[in-house]
Amino acid sequence: MRAVDLIQKKRDGGELNAEEISFLINGYNQGEIPDYQMSSMAMAILFQGMTASETAALTLEIARSGDQVDLSPISGIKVDKHSTGGVGDKTTLILGPLVASVGVPVAKMSGRGLGHTGGTIDKLESIAGFHTELTREQFMNQVNDISLAVIGQSGDLAPADKKLYALRDVTATVESIPLIASSVMSKKIAAGADAIVLDVKTGSGAFMKTVERSEQLASAMVAIGSEVGRQTAAVISDMDQPLGYAIGNALEVLESVDTLRGQGPEDLTELCLVLGAHMVVLGGKAASFDEAKELLRKQLHNGEALAKFRTFIVAQGGDDSFVDDASKLPTAPHTLEVTATESGYVHAIEAEELGLSAMVLGAGRATKEAVIDYAVGITLRKKVGEAVKAGETLATLHIREQNESAAGVAERVRRAFQIQQDRPVARPLLLSVVTVDGITRYSE
Amino acid sequence: MRAVDLIQKKRDGGELNAEEISFLINGYNQGEIPDYQMSSMAMAILFQGMTASETAALTLEIARSGDQVDLSPISGIKVDKHSTGGVGDKTTLILGPLVASVGVPVAKMSGRGLGHTGGTIDKLESIAGFHTELTREQFMNQVNDISLAVIGQSGDLAPADKKLYALRDVTATVESIPLIASSVMSKKIAAGADAIVLDVKTGSGAFMKTVERSEQLASAMVAIGSEVGRQTAAVISDMDQPLGYAIGNALEVLESVDTLRGQGPEDLTELCLVLGAHMVVLGGKAASFDEAKELLRKQLHNGEALAKFRTFIVAQGGDDSFVDDASKLPTAPHTLEVTATESGYVHAIEAEELGLSAMVLGAGRATKEAVIDYAVGITLRKKVGEAVKAGETLATLHIREQNESAAGVAERVRRAFQIQQDRPVARPLLLSVVTVDGITRYSE
Repeated sequence: MRAVDLIQKKRDGGELNAEEISFLINGYNQGEIPDYQMSSMAMAILFQGMTASETAALTLEIARSGDQVDLSPISGIKVDKHSTGGVGDKTTLILGPLVASVGVPVAKMSGRGLGHTGGTIDKLESIAGFHTELTREQFMNQVNDISLAVIGQSGDLAPADKKLYALRDVTATVESIPLIASSVMSKKIAAGADAIVLDVKTGSGAFMKTVERSEQLASAMVAIGSEVGRQTAAVISDMDQPLGYAIGNALEVLESVDTLRGQGPEDLTELCLVLGAHMVVLGGKAASFDEAKELLRKQLHNGEALAKFRTFIVAQGGDDSFVDDASKLPTAPHTLEVTATESGYVHAIEAEELGLSAMVLGAGRATKEAVIDYAVGITLRKKVGEAVKAGETLATLHIREQNESAAGVAERVRRAFQIQQDRPVARPLLLSVVTVDGITRYSE
Repeated sequence: MRAVDLIQKKRDGGELNAEEISFLINGYNQGEIPDYQMSSMAMAILFQGMTASETAALTLEIARSGDQVDLSPISGIKVDKHSTGGVGDKTTLILGPLVASVGVPVAKMSGRGLGHTGGTIDKLESIAGFHTELTREQFMNQVNDISLAVIGQSGDLAPADKKLYALRDVTATVESIPLIASSVMSKKIAAGADAIVLDVKTGSGAFMKTVERSEQLASAMVAIGSEVGRQTAAVISDMDQPLGYAIGNALEVLESVDTLRGQGPEDLTELCLVLGAHMVVLGGKAASFDEAKELLRKQLHNGEALAKFRTFIVAQGGDDSFVDDASKLPTAPHTLEVTATESGYVHAIEAEELGLSAMVLGAGRATKEAVIDYAVGITLRKKVGEAVKAGETLATLHIREQNESAAGVAERVRRAFQIQQDRPVARPLLLSVVTVDGITRYSE
């Protein structure tokens, strides 16, 4: 078998079989197939696409390229969640305790963030004493005991994905749906999930700009799940503004506590209930989506979800006193109000710009070596659809120092708010759900 | 400027400007842009194509990537010819003296062959004493004196083309018309041609399998010539059988002499007259194609073309006595007749198979280091359209030794003749001509 012949086959619209895909991914992972052949193949795939069985074979080969986690010591159906990324996205902090509180085992391997704000682990580490250094055995035992544990990604999960992603990034071959879908799913499969719920963001601030593309990506991922025996569901939601009000590590932990207490922002609460309900259904703890959602809503109001969160924090060495006293979390020494210069209505809030602004304040890492400042960040005071008067506060910056850099960020945040005279048409947060049964649009 | 952005632009159907193409080719040639970006770009070009001005800019950049020959010391319009390759193609040996005999200056840089039979220089070196070691000055002077000189390719012509071609070969990106067209034209432009006549082969034995693809390629090359101020014309001809009867170095020299004497095979003579007439028109030595063709036909019959050939051979140290006495050329010690096993009509002769057969006999180089046997080769005895009886000779092999290898080649040559019972429909040799004025089909 020769790589050039496989490239030609794909280029001419042919379908690669599992053996050919295995040759390609193994050869690439082991350095026998050079980057220049893989990048030309990636471009051919971008133009010609891949069938469901090609995409599934590709996903499995990438998942098999490194370590594969065996979660079988944990009883029950292990449901994992993946988000295609978003600014102010603290859903993992809320969903973990929420679904664990009804008995769905959550064995979460998470990462540290590079970019806007920290990853889930960075956010949790803003809590005094909290750590993720558990052995595999401690991790499994904790999930069996309290249904929830979070550890850092260890080992060598899907190394072919890392290598392929780095190549795609510099060869303009990122935007291929089968390649994106196999990248996401291969990591979830290697991490041992039995079932997967996907949080796919759409809109100008997201990687997928249109609902149609988001639905195509979601369908491709659900099809992979189906082909490889891991039930998968995807929820497509709007990202024309950040989720909730808080951006920044400790700020997001506090907003998560509010939400677990049943007092969270409407959009964040709703998305968590919908994602969580799919997790509960796939985890076999409810017969229908509506039943699951109702069950979870109760857990937010009866204190069970928050109690699970406290148990989890304490189990991993954390001091849970911040739940009752926010001042126990890192707090920025200064704040700076960002005010509107004109009156009108908020039409959109550029999430990407706010994320970058938070990073400049110190909430995220521009490089791997950067140290995160847990206290800093941004609190939104207005969201899309709200009226605003000139001089009113749009957002509050939580800053380390009152300086020119902070003033620059304030200006950047101000410009991220699109304010117009007319009242905007309300846009729903939740757009559609994709399962093996097909696509259901909320608007229909 | 970043290569990844240019790849994305092309991928999405955009047009690259001259500055962007310059960045790309210079960067690639200097090793600043890696193979993996260039191969992904090549695949994007294969799918999205290139506009005429993009293709022209690409051609000029490749031409400028190395040495550029300055032929200005030679007076007159220097017309070069390029063939897309063919088995038994000795047109350069004939066209050089033919058009030089009417005063068109031919300053030919030629190569040694890798494959079926030798290149033009190998063929000429089967003549005792002939050499191509001329200085640049001697080369220019000889063209000014007798209108014709041939030297080997020296210096570093279009190195970016060599690098790019090697990459395309292993990444399934050879078959892109703008990339093929720019590859051919960049070398001709770097070699200093004022005007270019292209001999584009089509058919099952050629790189371009259909007349339509051949016309697309020819149109792309003519458009490049037009954009960069080098008048270009292309003749598209059939390659469902070898040109003429002789395949092999000395054998082809003899057939060229026959043709220059006005006694050559009909197909070879006609193609040379048509290609030559276009060269004469572009070289400004006739007002119309018909006038030029008539002029050249006369030169074949009045001895002028052959006289120019002798002058040229002698000028480069050769002994021209073989023109009157064929035994002065290398002659193979044995011959082997290839006979038909059934009666019928010849429908096709697989040129590629005959070329490879000649190479096995020793007429060509399988590797760069191989030594050519000038004497060996194949003489066809039947061509397409002719009736043949079982037992009749199809071809004669000129061989070094009577052995099993020769017997194997004989069998291979026998199978290259497609013999069927019905009389084949006659196919014209010349299919169309492409100039700046458009495509003219012979059949219309």
